[in-house]
Amino acid sequence: MSIDVLQERIRKLKNPVMVGLDPYLPILPPHIVSEAFEEHGQTLHGAAEAYYRFCTELLDALAEIVPAVKLQSACFEALGAEGIAQMQRISKYAKQRGYYVLIDSMRGDVGGVAEIYAQAMFGSVSVGEKDYRLYDCDALTLNPYLGSDGVKPFLPYCKHDGKNIFLLLKTSNKSSREVQDLLSGDRVVYTAMADLAMRWSVDLFGKNGYSEIGAVVGATFPQTMKLLREKYDRLFFLVPGYGAQGGTAKNVQFAFDRFGHGAIITASRSIICAWQMTESDGRDYTQRAVDAALKMKNDIAKYVVIL
Amino acid sequence: MSIDVLQERIRKLKNPVMVGLDPYLPILPPHIVSEAFEEHGQTLHGAAEAYYRFCTELLDALAEIVPAVKLQSACFEALGAEGIAQMQRISKYAKQRGYYVLIDSMRGDVGGVAEIYAQAMFGSVSVGEKDYRLYDCDALTLNPYLGSDGVKPFLPYCKHDGKNIFLLLKTSNKSSREVQDLLSGDRVVYTAMADLAMRWSVDLFGKNGYSEIGAVVGATFPQTMKLLREKYDRLFFLVPGYGAQGGTAKNVQFAFDRFGHGAIITASRSIICAWQMTESDGRDYTQRAVDAALKMKNDIAKYVVIL
Repeated sequence: MSIDVLQERIRKLKNPVMVGLDPYLPILPPHIVSEAFEEHGQTLHGAAEAYYRFCTELLDALAEIVPAVKLQSACFEALGAEGIAQMQRISKYAKQRGYYVLIDSMRGDVGGVAEIYAQAMFGSVSVGEKDYRLYDCDALTLNPYLGSDGVKPFLPYCKHDGKNIFLLLKTSNKSSREVQDLLSGDRVVYTAMADLAMRWSVDLFGKNGYSEIGAVVGATFPQTMKLLREKYDRLFFLVPGYGAQGGTAKNVQFAFDRFGHGAIITASRSIICAWQMTESDGRDYTQRAVDAALKMKNDIAKYVVIL
Repeated sequence: MSIDVLQERIRKLKNPVMVGLDPYLPILPPHIVSEAFEEHGQTLHGAAEAYYRFCTELLDALAEIVPAVKLQSACFEALGAEGIAQMQRISKYAKQRGYYVLIDSMRGDVGGVAEIYAQAMFGSVSVGEKDYRLYDCDALTLNPYLGSDGVKPFLPYCKHDGKNIFLLLKTSNKSSREVQDLLSGDRVVYTAMADLAMRWSVDLFGKNGYSEIGAVVGATFPQTMKLLREKYDRLFFLVPGYGAQGGTAKNVQFAFDRFGHGAIITASRSIICAWQMTESDGRDYTQRAVDAALKMKNDIAKYVVIL
């Protein structure tokens, strides 16, 4: 896909929301865990199968509502190889269902290692005469603390294969100010990052004007978001921090341009664990997720009209 | 282990070198690849088995010379679940052989996700009534761009379980200056990071005076390293950039304190691919690695005496 395709999917579904899939045994509905343990054993494999069912049932339920999903790599890595096997399966499943798929691994390697990683995530891995597509995602989050060397290996995939990277600029967590807000001359660190993102974006702009290199900008700092939106009107924003962390629909309106374009808002636990906010035993968790996703869509629609 | 144990192992072997294991099919000796394909098929599984043999044979050969090893997570992730399965095996194998084991994943998650990751890497993962130790490493590299929220979930393991984290301060790649060298008041970003590392180190100092929180400082900027060593005399340095990137024994002497303590120098390709620098067909790769490791040890010993 590409930033244009992502925008088009958002426009079609009139929903600028990316649902985060970050499975973890304690947040799964009990019936899913117990049935997976019954069938596959009380093992890492059993747990990983529970993740697969949980995520794919959510993907089925949300396919007509939500344009994009985000897989939290660390949650899968936490089950070791069994978890990664399911992350690969779930990523492919999501693609088949038409989602734009981001793998959220916040990596920041450089040089040869970054090249190897970029190829595995965006391209295919050669083993002898065979090529294996392992993850096949549309986008990755990257931590740009290492500068160009950590970003450039990903750019050919943005240019030729419709892939996107989202660089951490100003994250939604409270302590993001400790480093990201350091003042340097007339800039702060996150605007210096944004300037770099613009520099790396030469010849990477889509038809809608946005770069294939996006930026992570937290919903928890609406004034910062507003300033960044005005100054960097060609960087597509991936916006975490909605819901549990305090970001509201009113806040996130500033992430969008005047056409209601240029941003996607992420939400994880507030959607995928919506059943835990009720008296539910979890058997209706997909319906609860759909309800929560629609509520979020409607809340944002009060402030943002997607033309 | 802990920073004290790492220092003790370095002192015992009189060798402040950490060998990086970052396997990749094109750098493996041909006989290892072909024999793995013969036995396991020309598949991801076969490739991953080749990684295992390559890494464990190197671990056997270097066990009496080298105190610590570093597994490059991205290289294993690049083979998907098969790669991660071998990273888990190799980490355990290295521990059994007595190595201090660092997993180099340069992650930077926050909050609940960071907690899940910390537990999986340093502790054990609970599945029903069972606990699984998956990675069991001694140390991780972390990207601290997100501030305290990304670091704090790892600190209990540093305090109670003898684990270490190494925060990226000033990396060895050329473009590190783009972000890390930004001037902010009387500090640059990497010294602001170092100040944070010191703040997080309260009650985390080992018997030798060094914090369980270490710092990544590249060998390619010797003046910076010297200044950092003088100012931050309680941060243990993990030093990349030796060899291929241009860091020399003369440069890295500045990473050490006057007892020859407080730093470990990493080297990957220059050791594990040493056979490629010769006319060798690769069958003697472990001997070539031993020779290269001894040469590096001796080169550093010309400038650094470990008391």
